[in-house]
Amino acid sequence: MAEKSAADIAAEVGGSLVGDGSVKVSAVASLADAGERHVSFLGNEKYRAQVATTEAGIVLVPIDYAAEPPPGRAYIRCDNPNRAFSQLVVDFAPAPLVPTPGTHPAAVVAEGATVAPSASIGACAVIEEGAVIGEKTIIGAGTYIGHGARIGRDCHLYPNVTVREACILGDRVIVHSGTVIGSDGFGFEMSKEGHTKIPQIGMVQIDDDVELGACVTVDRARFGRTWIKRGVKVDNLVQIAHNVVIGEHSVIVAQVGISGSAILGKHVIMAGQSGAPGHIHIGDGATIMGKSGPMSDVEPGATLMGMPAMPRAKFMRCSVLYQRLPDMHSQLKSLQKQVEELSRRLAELDPS
Amino acid sequence: MAEKSAADIAAEVGGSLVGDGSVKVSAVASLADAGERHVSFLGNEKYRAQVATTEAGIVLVPIDYAAEPPPGRAYIRCDNPNRAFSQLVVDFAPAPLVPTPGTHPAAVVAEGATVAPSASIGACAVIEEGAVIGEKTIIGAGTYIGHGARIGRDCHLYPNVTVREACILGDRVIVHSGTVIGSDGFGFEMSKEGHTKIPQIGMVQIDDDVELGACVTVDRARFGRTWIKRGVKVDNLVQIAHNVVIGEHSVIVAQVGISGSAILGKHVIMAGQSGAPGHIHIGDGATIMGKSGPMSDVEPGATLMGMPAMPRAKFMRCSVLYQRLPDMHSQLKSLQKQVEELSRRLAELDPS
Amino acid sequence: MAEKSAADIAAEVGGSLVGDGSVKVSAVASLADAGERHVSFLGNEKYRAQVATTEAGIVLVPIDYAAEPPPGRAYIRCDNPNRAFSQLVVDFAPAPLVPTPGTHPAAVVAEGATVAPSASIGACAVIEEGAVIGEKTIIGAGTYIGHGARIGRDCHLYPNVTVREACILGDRVIVHSGTVIGSDGFGFEMSKEGHTKIPQIGMVQIDDDVELGACVTVDRARFGRTWIKRGVKVDNLVQIAHNVVIGEHSVIVAQVGISGSAILGKHVIMAGQSGAPGHIHIGDGATIMGKSGPMSDVEPGATLMGMPAMPRAKFMRCSVLYQRLPDMHSQLKSLQKQVEELSRRLAELDPS
Repeated sequence: MAEKSAADIAAEVGGSLVGDGSVKVSAVASLADAGERHVSFLGNEKYRAQVATTEAGIVLVPIDYAAEPPPGRAYIRCDNPNRAFSQLVVDFAPAPLVPTPGTHPAAVVAEGATVAPSASIGACAVIEEGAVIGEKTIIGAGTYIGHGARIGRDCHLYPNVTVREACILGDRVIVHSGTVIGSDGFGFEMSKEGHTKIPQIGMVQIDDDVELGACVTVDRARFGRTWIKRGVKVDNLVQIAHNVVIGEHSVIVAQVGISGSAILGKHVIMAGQSGAPGHIHIGDGATIMGKSGPMSDVEPGATLMGMPAMPRAKFMRCSVLYQRLPDMHSQLKSLQKQVEELSRRLAELDPS
Repeated sequence: MAEKSAADIAAEVGGSLVGDGSVKVSAVASLADAGERHVSFLGNEKYRAQVATTEAGIVLVPIDYAAEPPPGRAYIRCDNPNRAFSQLVVDFAPAPLVPTPGTHPAAVVAEGATVAPSASIGACAVIEEGAVIGEKTIIGAGTYIGHGARIGRDCHLYPNVTVREACILGDRVIVHSGTVIGSDGFGFEMSKEGHTKIPQIGMVQIDDDVELGACVTVDRARFGRTWIKRGVKVDNLVQIAHNVVIGEHSVIVAQVGISGSAILGKHVIMAGQSGAPGHIHIGDGATIMGKSGPMSDVEPGATLMGMPAMPRAKFMRCSVLYQRLPDMHSQLKSLQKQVEELSRRLAELDPS
Repeated sequence: MAEKSAADIAAEVGGSLVGDGSVKVSAVASLADAGERHVSFLGNEKYRAQVATTEAGIVLVPIDYAAEPPPGRAYIRCDNPNRAFSQLVVDFAPAPLVPTPGTHPAAVVAEGATVAPSASIGACAVIEEGAVIGEKTIIGAGTYIGHGARIGRDCHLYPNVTVREACILGDRVIVHSGTVIGSDGFGFEMSKEGHTKIPQIGMVQIDDDVELGACVTVDRARFGRTWIKRGVKVDNLVQIAHNVVIGEHSVIVAQVGISGSAILGKHVIMAGQSGAPGHIHIGDGATIMGKSGPMSDVEPGATLMGMPAMPRAKFMRCSVLYQRLPDMHSQLKSLQKQVEELSRRLAELDPS
């Protein structure tokens, strides 16, 4: 197992060493779990007090962390302890799995499919006619790639993913297990006698550097495309309906639902369990807080919360008053009595 | 690629032509995306202004759309532009995929299973003993059909679906990828020492013309059946718990959760991310708005919103006042001061 | 089919017989669905009135159910009709499926994997190198077990489950179809130029007697482990993010989302569609009601509701007043007018 000294690590991450540079560690751990052979980090202010109590041999701390480590230990002050720690996590990890290029004998690749020689196709994966798999792309076991779907290079589709026909993924796209790309949009001509399916024959386009979590559903367009643009990151169990467009580098947290034809700008953040109604526009850089639901278009840069969603500061103020409703109600009752009493007394004084 | 003139299309959809009947198009597009070789449509009032600015050669408009098209273009007025457009979407689409009847050599069909000759079983699909697959039904690659499950005719189960033992699907049922039918209901005898599993040995019955989206979960009954009746349409990532009954033609939008033994009437609509608690009854034709949660039985025809849910109009009124709570709070404080002042002055006037 | 008399059943469940002990039944049913050859039960007070109207030959009732059955029928009074009924459900059920031990010829087990002789590996399941499958464990068709993952004994992983590399499951763990264990945590260094993936190289540890529903997602830790402790029960479509810890015997209902590094104590209950933000601590025995979202740490034993969550009784009181906001608003307006009027009259009386 790799071993590094505090001096080595300080040099590697470009931080400044405080304390004993000869302390050696061989693994990473959280402040709470660490022992003397671990390096840990302060990446969230919530855990600041744990730096003083941790048993970690080395702790990565922010630049402004002034205290000295106990004897025989080291702190390393760095600009971004979180990022520096990520580097160490990889350094100390076991070697990553590198699938062998080629098609597993138990995979099923149709004659008319095109698989790059450096791609890796797992056991029981099914690649249909006309599909194209790019260089160095990994298709996990049991994953399905439909007719004419095109997957770019350096992608990683984990096991048991489904990509339906005609969908297009760019380069370096990551898709986690259980996710479904290109299922039919949910559209019906509704009537009392029963609902008639509206054909959903568009596709899904996913641009470069997108990551989709596990059990995400992305519906194909009614016509044209459902479009997830470059660099978008999507967490688990998210619903993206037909004809949705998500702008570059937006971040969609777990269990969010985005309804049909909604258009999100760039760098939008939708926090966990929030929702966007159909045909809404959400401006660049807007943030929708957890569990919240805007009911009309959202201005660029806005931060909204609540259901219906309102500016976050307003929501926080209103939610405090919501909890004071019983007081307000009592005060109102009391005022009513006082005003009646005043009115009665005034009438006595001035019977006119 | 197919090509159609405005006159052709007007005849096909039974609409009335306005403008140049000789304009030809070869594809569909939205108003915003269309060029002169596209036909588009006005299907949502939100986009009305785009009819004047679109570059579409032909636009399907509602009967009451009075304006004339620019020279060299055509409008077609029709009763239902949305429905008419759906027809054109199909006309201009590439020929649909038609799977070959028969069992793929890489599928695994148990000896005691019965597969109709016209059915199509995809690669790596697994059909267990006693299962029955009806005429012209398509079982996608990697889909699992458990022991004794029965799937009717003209069904389409997309890749990577799971149907557990003993479940029954009617005819023309569509099930999208990732969906699980017949997982155990969530039932435990709870105790401080640990929870004991309550056996879940009922089944799931899904009637004709039901469509289930992607990554939907439908739990088997504790005993008897979880029952989704004829014509119900279910969107993605919906949870349907054990012993739930959903009435004919109800519509369940994405990420809805329906708890155990809930009973929904006919033509109920549950909008996205709404929820129904256990054992609730929701009457025929009721609508539960997005993110809402009724906490007691719902009358037929009611439209509820909020958590807890209340009549929609009431919710809209209350939610406006919620946002005015800071004003109401200030007004209350101000009134308290004024009343104190009045009281003091009155005491001076009338010291009795 | 099995047949039992009321006297037999009373003896089996340790209940006291009221009415005709010779009544025979051969199946179970709900009070509403039952006929004379069925045994039913009163397990939920909501259905108490149905005992008098059911056609069930035998009904299991609580000890305090005083009424007598009609002639030719029987009641059996017992401490826990729900538990007693579960026993009968199993008695009258068809024999459970018992998969044959061994590896299906269409399964793909890597050379370096270790599968216990009494384990059963389904068709198209894929077991990677270094994986270990314990005695009597059932791996369903199409299920994927990644490199070095270890599954204990007497587990049941249903079809189309995904367990990624290095994850560890204890004994008697049940995992339903579509569930994904060990997908990457959702962590990025965010920037305007694009978000950089934070390596997620920890694992997931699931202890003995845990049950996970269908389409659940459990992300692997950034480092260390995401940890679901002994006896935890998780319903369908739940999101469990990286580095979450869930204490013994906690119950997580459908569509709950638990954000990164949240720590739940023992016997916590999170009801349907509730959510927990990142890094929160939820104390032992706390309950988070449906659709609710605490925004700060939760005391042991607390029962919270609302968004943001507050004590349940307080939420219920506030939610009633929320619905009276229109009245309160009118009363406030009316008071303002009255106070103005009083003020005016007082000024007339006392012009000083």
